[in-house]
Amino acid sequence: MERNLKELISQMTLEEKAGMCSGLDFWHLKGVERLGIPSTTVSDGPHGLRKQDDKADHLGINDSIKAVCFPPAVLSACSFDRDLLETLGETVGDEAQATDLSVVLGPAVNIKRSPLCGRNFEYYSEDPYLAGESAAAFIKGVQSRHVGTSIKHFAANNQEFNRMSASSEVDERTMREIYLPAFETAVKKSQPYTVMCSYNKINGTYASENPWLLTKVLRDEWGFKGYVMSDWGAVNDRVEGLKAGLELEMPSSNGINDAEIVKAVQEGTLDEAILDRAVERILNIVFEYVDNRKEQPLTLEEDHEFAQHVAEESIVLLKNEEKVLPLEKNEKVAFIGGFVKNPRYQGGGSSHVNSFKVTSVWDALTEKENVIYAEGFSSETDVYDEKLAAEAIEAAKQVDKAVVFAGLPESFESEGYDRKHMHLPECQDKLIAEIVKAQPNTIVVLHNGAAVEMPWLKDVKGLVEAYLGGQAVGQAEANILYGNVNPSGKLAETLPIKLEDNPSYLNFGDGDKVEYSEGIFVGYRYYDKKKMEVAFPFGYGLSYTTFEYSNVKTDKDTLTEGETLQVSVDVTNTGDKFGKEIVQLYVADKTEAIRRPEKELKGFEKVALNPGETKRVTFTVDKRSLAWYNTEIQDWYAASGAYELLIAASSQDVRLTKTIQWKSTQVLPLHLHMNSTLGELQADERSRDFGIELKLKMNALFGLGSSEDSTDAVSDEMGDAIAFSIPVRNAVGFGLCTKEELQKKLDELNKR
Amino acid sequence: MERNLKELISQMTLEEKAGMCSGLDFWHLKGVERLGIPSTTVSDGPHGLRKQDDKADHLGINDSIKAVCFPPAVLSACSFDRDLLETLGETVGDEAQATDLSVVLGPAVNIKRSPLCGRNFEYYSEDPYLAGESAAAFIKGVQSRHVGTSIKHFAANNQEFNRMSASSEVDERTMREIYLPAFETAVKKSQPYTVMCSYNKINGTYASENPWLLTKVLRDEWGFKGYVMSDWGAVNDRVEGLKAGLELEMPSSNGINDAEIVKAVQEGTLDEAILDRAVERILNIVFEYVDNRKEQPLTLEEDHEFAQHVAEESIVLLKNEEKVLPLEKNEKVAFIGGFVKNPRYQGGGSSHVNSFKVTSVWDALTEKENVIYAEGFSSETDVYDEKLAAEAIEAAKQVDKAVVFAGLPESFESEGYDRKHMHLPECQDKLIAEIVKAQPNTIVVLHNGAAVEMPWLKDVKGLVEAYLGGQAVGQAEANILYGNVNPSGKLAETLPIKLEDNPSYLNFGDGDKVEYSEGIFVGYRYYDKKKMEVAFPFGYGLSYTTFEYSNVKTDKDTLTEGETLQVSVDVTNTGDKFGKEIVQLYVADKTEAIRRPEKELKGFEKVALNPGETKRVTFTVDKRSLAWYNTEIQDWYAASGAYELLIAASSQDVRLTKTIQWKSTQVLPLHLHMNSTLGELQADERSRDFGIELKLKMNALFGLGSSEDSTDAVSDEMGDAIAFSIPVRNAVGFGLCTKEELQKKLDELNKR
Repeated sequence: MERNLKELISQMTLEEKAGMCSGLDFWHLKGVERLGIPSTTVSDGPHGLRKQDDKADHLGINDSIKAVCFPPAVLSACSFDRDLLETLGETVGDEAQATDLSVVLGPAVNIKRSPLCGRNFEYYSEDPYLAGESAAAFIKGVQSRHVGTSIKHFAANNQEFNRMSASSEVDERTMREIYLPAFETAVKKSQPYTVMCSYNKINGTYASENPWLLTKVLRDEWGFKGYVMSDWGAVNDRVEGLKAGLELEMPSSNGINDAEIVKAVQEGTLDEAILDRAVERILNIVFEYVDNRKEQPLTLEEDHEFAQHVAEESIVLLKNEEKVLPLEKNEKVAFIGGFVKNPRYQGGGSSHVNSFKVTSVWDALTEKENVIYAEGFSSETDVYDEKLAAEAIEAAKQVDKAVVFAGLPESFESEGYDRKHMHLPECQDKLIAEIVKAQPNTIVVLHNGAAVEMPWLKDVKGLVEAYLGGQAVGQAEANILYGNVNPSGKLAETLPIKLEDNPSYLNFGDGDKVEYSEGIFVGYRYYDKKKMEVAFPFGYGLSYTTFEYSNVKTDKDTLTEGETLQVSVDVTNTGDKFGKEIVQLYVADKTEAIRRPEKELKGFEKVALNPGETKRVTFTVDKRSLAWYNTEIQDWYAASGAYELLIAASSQDVRLTKTIQWKSTQVLPLHLHMNSTLGELQADERSRDFGIELKLKMNALFGLGSSEDSTDAVSDEMGDAIAFSIPVRNAVGFGLCTKEELQKKLDELNKR
Repeated sequence: MERNLKELISQMTLEEKAGMCSGLDFWHLKGVERLGIPSTTVSDGPHGLRKQDDKADHLGINDSIKAVCFPPAVLSACSFDRDLLETLGETVGDEAQATDLSVVLGPAVNIKRSPLCGRNFEYYSEDPYLAGESAAAFIKGVQSRHVGTSIKHFAANNQEFNRMSASSEVDERTMREIYLPAFETAVKKSQPYTVMCSYNKINGTYASENPWLLTKVLRDEWGFKGYVMSDWGAVNDRVEGLKAGLELEMPSSNGINDAEIVKAVQEGTLDEAILDRAVERILNIVFEYVDNRKEQPLTLEEDHEFAQHVAEESIVLLKNEEKVLPLEKNEKVAFIGGFVKNPRYQGGGSSHVNSFKVTSVWDALTEKENVIYAEGFSSETDVYDEKLAAEAIEAAKQVDKAVVFAGLPESFESEGYDRKHMHLPECQDKLIAEIVKAQPNTIVVLHNGAAVEMPWLKDVKGLVEAYLGGQAVGQAEANILYGNVNPSGKLAETLPIKLEDNPSYLNFGDGDKVEYSEGIFVGYRYYDKKKMEVAFPFGYGLSYTTFEYSNVKTDKDTLTEGETLQVSVDVTNTGDKFGKEIVQLYVADKTEAIRRPEKELKGFEKVALNPGETKRVTFTVDKRSLAWYNTEIQDWYAASGAYELLIAASSQDVRLTKTIQWKSTQVLPLHLHMNSTLGELQADERSRDFGIELKLKMNALFGLGSSEDSTDAVSDEMGDAIAFSIPVRNAVGFGLCTKEELQKKLDELNKR
C-alpha cells in the first residue's frame, strides 16, 4: 500500500506531531484516530515475548501474557548458526503477529566487556563480528514477518551500575572496532526497523542526545532508514534528543516532553522540519507493520519444541575426559542439584518471559529406573544444607556417574545491577568438591548467564555449559547428556580463570565515568595479547565425534580495494558419530603498522558431517576483514603487506594458515610538523630522504656513526635508535637550519 | 655572604638577563664578567661525574674526565638505606667540589612503568615512596657540600621512544599518587637546588612549558625555591616556557631563544618581571655554590671503595636453594660468562661515567686455586659460540658449583631508546639451559638495568641480582658469593614472569600519545590487584641468616588530621650470621571509599642484627600514609574508617598486621544534580533521607518491595540494587514531582 506520509503529516497539528514522538503509555505508541493512524504495541522480548496488556510497567513485575522463552542470546550465540538464528527470528516474528505486536525490543548486541555485567545473558558475545552476524540473522527472521526489531542498546552500554548516568569513556578506534560493528553489521545487512539508544553517556554525551552516534554514524555512514527509540527512561533533554536523531521517546513522559517539543518549535529553537522528519520516520515503520498485519494462531507447543532445538544446537560441551559423556541408558546416574527440577533458564528484568511451560531435565527423563535425584542444594539461595549435602554425597557414591546441575540463582543476574563477583554460590562449590571425592565420574552442567569461576574444574571429568537454555532446556540437556544429540555449540565468550584476569577488572562498575582503558583488547583479544591462561578460550567446544581440517586454499594470493578473496578448507568427520563443526576464520595483521590483536574473528561456518564425510567450507575475505579504524583519516584502513588467514577450531586452536598480501590504494596524508621525529620522517617514503639527511647531519655533529674516537657506549645502531626519536625542531637548535627553512621544507613535504 | 640579587639584576641589560636563562654552551651557564657573575659548570652524573671539558656534547660520545662510577639507581635503591644514599650524595658532592661542578644532574626518580624503558637503570623504583625517600637522601648528601642537584625528569617521562614529542596521557589522580610523589617528597624534604623538566608532553602540553606542573604544583603547592632547567633540548617555545616557570634552558640555543625573550619583552608579550624573577632564581643558586666553593682533592681510590660498599649493601639474593650460597673457599667453582672478566656495571647515555678503574669479579678473586674460568659467551653480542659453550659446559662438569655471570649487553639498554623485549641474549639463555643439565649446583648472577625473563629460573639453585653495580661491582660480588658480606638488598621493582604481564604492556612505546591507562596500578599495585604470579615480588630479597618479626604495637588505635601514630615491631636475627633486614610498612585501605591498590609502601627501615639479637623498629604513620588524591577537592583525602598497617618482609610476605581507625575532618562537598543516582543520594548522610524517600516512592510505583502479587524474578534486594542506579531526574518522568521542585530540593541539599 502506497502512502503519502508527507501529505498525512501536513494534516497533523503541532501537538499531534510532538505526541507521535513519545509513547502513549509504557507499551503503546500514540495513534491519531481522525487521520487513521492506529496506536501500535511494542514489547520486550529478544528471546520471547513479554507483552503486557493490563497494568503496564517496565521492570517485569506484573504478569505478561503466557509465551515461549527461547534460549537467551548468551546461549543461542554459541550455535554460531546464522540459519538457526534467522529461524528463531521468524518464530518470534510469527508470535508477534499472532499477538499483534508491531516491534519486538531486541536483539541486544552489546559487547561482553566484563563477566560481571548483569545483562550479559541478553548479549551475544565478546566479539563484534559474531554479535553482528547473529543479530543480522535474527533481525532478518523477525522482519520477514513485517514485525519490527529494535537493536539495542546503542551504544557502549556494557554495565548496569549507574547505567542511566555514567559515561562510557571510549576512544574512537575502540568504538569503531569493538562497540559499534555489531550494530553496523545488523544495520547494513538487515535494516532493523528501529534502533534503541542506550541509557548511558558516551564520552560525556547521553546516547539519547548524541548527534555523532544517532545521525552521523548510524544514518549518514551506515544508511539506517528506520527510527531510533529511547531505552525506557533514557531521555535526558527531549529537544536535544530530537535534534540529535532520537525520534521516539519511550515510555510516555506524561506529556511533559511533548510540551517541551511544542514550545521549542513555537519559540524557534527547534526547526519544525526536524519534527516532521521524525514523525515521518516513525509513521513509516508503523504502517510497514499495519499494512502487512496478518492474523495467525499462536503455536506455543510447536515453538516450545523449536526452543529445545535452539538449545540443543547451542549448548557447549567443555570437558569430556575418558569419554565420561554421553551417558549410557544402563548406567546408574545421580542427578544432583536444585536445578535438576527447577532449572534456571532465563535472566531477570525486561527480557523476563512468562513461560507457558518449563521442561526440567528431570521432566525430560522418561525412563527413570537407572537415575536417582538428590537436591544437594537449593537453586535459589546460597546456604550449605548439611542434610541435603549428605544425601547428595551418598547418592553420588551409589552410582556409576554423578551429574551436578549447578548454576547461578536468579537473584545473582539481572538487568539493573551487576554481579560483585564471579563465583557460584559457595554452597555449590563446596558440594561439588565433596561430590568429586565421592564419585570419580562427576559431570557438571552449568546454568548461568555469564562466566563463573570453577575451582573444581580440574577434578570433574565432564563439563557442560548450558548457560540459560530457555524453557525447554531440560529436554535439550537430557538429549545431549545421553547422546541423542551430539553437542555442537562453541563458546561465544572466553571463560577466564578468575575475575581479576578480565581486561576491564580495574575499570568496571564504579564511579560516574567508566574508562574503557583496555581499548580494543576485549575478550580473547586481551587474553591472546597478554599470553594469559584461560579456563576455556573463545570459540571452544567439544563434540562426541572428531573433525580434521585439511587442504586450505585461496583463490588468489593478493587482494586490493574492491576485491574479495575466497579461502576454503576441507573438514572431515573422523569419528564415528554424526556431528556438526563450527569452523572459524581469524585474521592476523603481520604488517606491524599499528598495535592490533593477535587475531580477530572474520568468518565462521557450521557444517554437518556424517562419519567419514568431508565437506569444503569457504570464507570470503575483503578489505574490511583486514582493516582497522584509522582515526586520522576517519576510515577503515589496512596497511599494505602480509596478513595471515587462520583456519581454526577455536581462538586457541589454529589448524591451518594461509598468508596473503594486501595492496592498499589509500594514501595517508602527511602531517609533518616541528615536533615530528626523524623516525616519523624516515617511516614514510615521501619524507624518507629528508629524514636520513637530517639524521646524518646530527650524527656528524655528535660524532655518531664514526666510532673510532669514541670510548663510550654508543654504537652506530644505538645512535640510529636514539636519533629515531629526535624531533626535527632540534635541527634549528643544533644550527643545521633556520626555523623558517625547516618549516618551508615540512610544508613542501606535506603537499606530496 | 649576603648578596642583593635584586640590585645586581637591576644593573643587567635586557640581553644579559635573557642570556642568563640559557647555557653558554653544553655544560656552562653564562657569566657576566663586568658584574662579577661567574660562569658555572654543570655535569651529568646521578651515579658519578661525567664532566666534559673539551669538545662538549650531550650523548656521551667524547671522553669525560676520569671519575668513579657508583652503582646506578637501579641497584642503590635496593639498599632501602637512606643513610647510605645520603653518604653516596656526600661523596658525589665532594667529587663535584673537587672538580668545580656547581650542579650534578641527578637524581632521576621517574617511575619504572615498563621494564622496557631504556633508562630504567637510572631510576630508583616502581614505587613512588621508595623513589622519593631515596632521592631525598641523595640530594641531602650532595647539597651538604653546597653543590646543587637537579632532580629529573619532571615529569611522567617513562619511556625513551618519542621521548621528545610524545604526550604522556595521565589522569590527575595517577599523576598525584604515582608519578609526582617522588619529586614532591624530595622537594619538601631536601629542596633540590634545581629541578630538570622532562622532554615529553603531559596531557598535550610540553613539560617545559607547563604552568600547572612547573608553577602551580612545584612552587605553589610544594614550595620549591630553586630553579627549573630544561632537559637538554627539551625547549619547544622558549617564551611560553619562561612564563610557565622554566628558568634555564640547556644547552645553549645559539642565541636564538635569548633573542626571542628579548623580543617578547620589547613587544610587551612577556612581562620583564617574569624574566627578572627567573634570573634571580638562577643567580641565587649560582652564588649558593660560588660563595661556598671549597677546593679539595679528588679521592678516587677511596670513592672506589665506597662504590663497592654501596654495591654490597644493595645486591639482591633472590634464590638460594639447599644453601648453595655462600660458596666455600675449598669448593671447586667454575666462573662462566663474558661478564666474569668484563662486567657490565652501568648504562648508556648521559649518565655514562669514564671510570678510572673497573674491578671484575675475576680481578677480585685473589686466590684462584679452586676456581676456573670459561667465557661461555661474549658479554657484548648475542652469538651462540659452540666452542665457547662446549668449554663452559665442560668446565661446569668438573666443579662442585657453577656460577654463570649473565646479563644484558651494553647495546640493549641506553638512554635514547627502549628495549623491544625482556629477554637475555638467546645465547645466554641457551647456555644456562645446558649448564644446569651439566651441573646441578648452578648459580646465576645477573647484570642488567631492568627486569629480564628467566626461562631457566626453576632449574638454577642460586640467583643473585647484581643489576648494574658500578665500577667496583666485581669485588662486591665476590664478597657476597663467598659470604664475606651477607646480602641485604631487596627488590625495588617487581620482576614479572614475562613482558606481557606488565601493566603498561598494551600501551607502551608507540605513537604520539602514551595512554597511562593502567592508572595508579603500576608495579606491585597491579600484580597484587590482578592476583598475578610474578617471578619475584617488590621488596623481596634473601639473606644468609633468617629474621623473625613479633610484638607489633601501635601507640594509639585512632588517628585524625594533624596527628601521627607510631607502629613498632621487634625484629630478631634467628640465624647464625650477622645480617641486615629491610622491614617494610604497607598500608591497606579497608574503607572501600574508592578503588585503591591492595597495599602501598609507606615506610621502610633497614636494621643490622647480630645472631640472636632483637631490635625494635618504629614507623610513623600520618594522614598522608593513608590518603589518596581526591581530584574533586584537589587534595589528599582519606575516608573515615579502618586501615590496616602491614608489617612485611616483602610486598607478598606480610608478617604482622594492625588495624587502625582514621577519623577524617574533611567534608566532601555535595554536588547533586538531575542525574545523580538514588544510590549516590543514599551514600551521603546529608541526602540519605531524601534518597530513601524517592526509592520508596519508586518502589511503590512499580510494586517493588511488596512481592505477594509478583510472579517474576525481582526480589526486594534486587529491587534495591536496581533502584541504586536510577537518576533522580526519573522522579519527574514518573510523576513524583516537578522538575522545579526536584531542582530546588537538590539545591537545598547541596548547601548542607
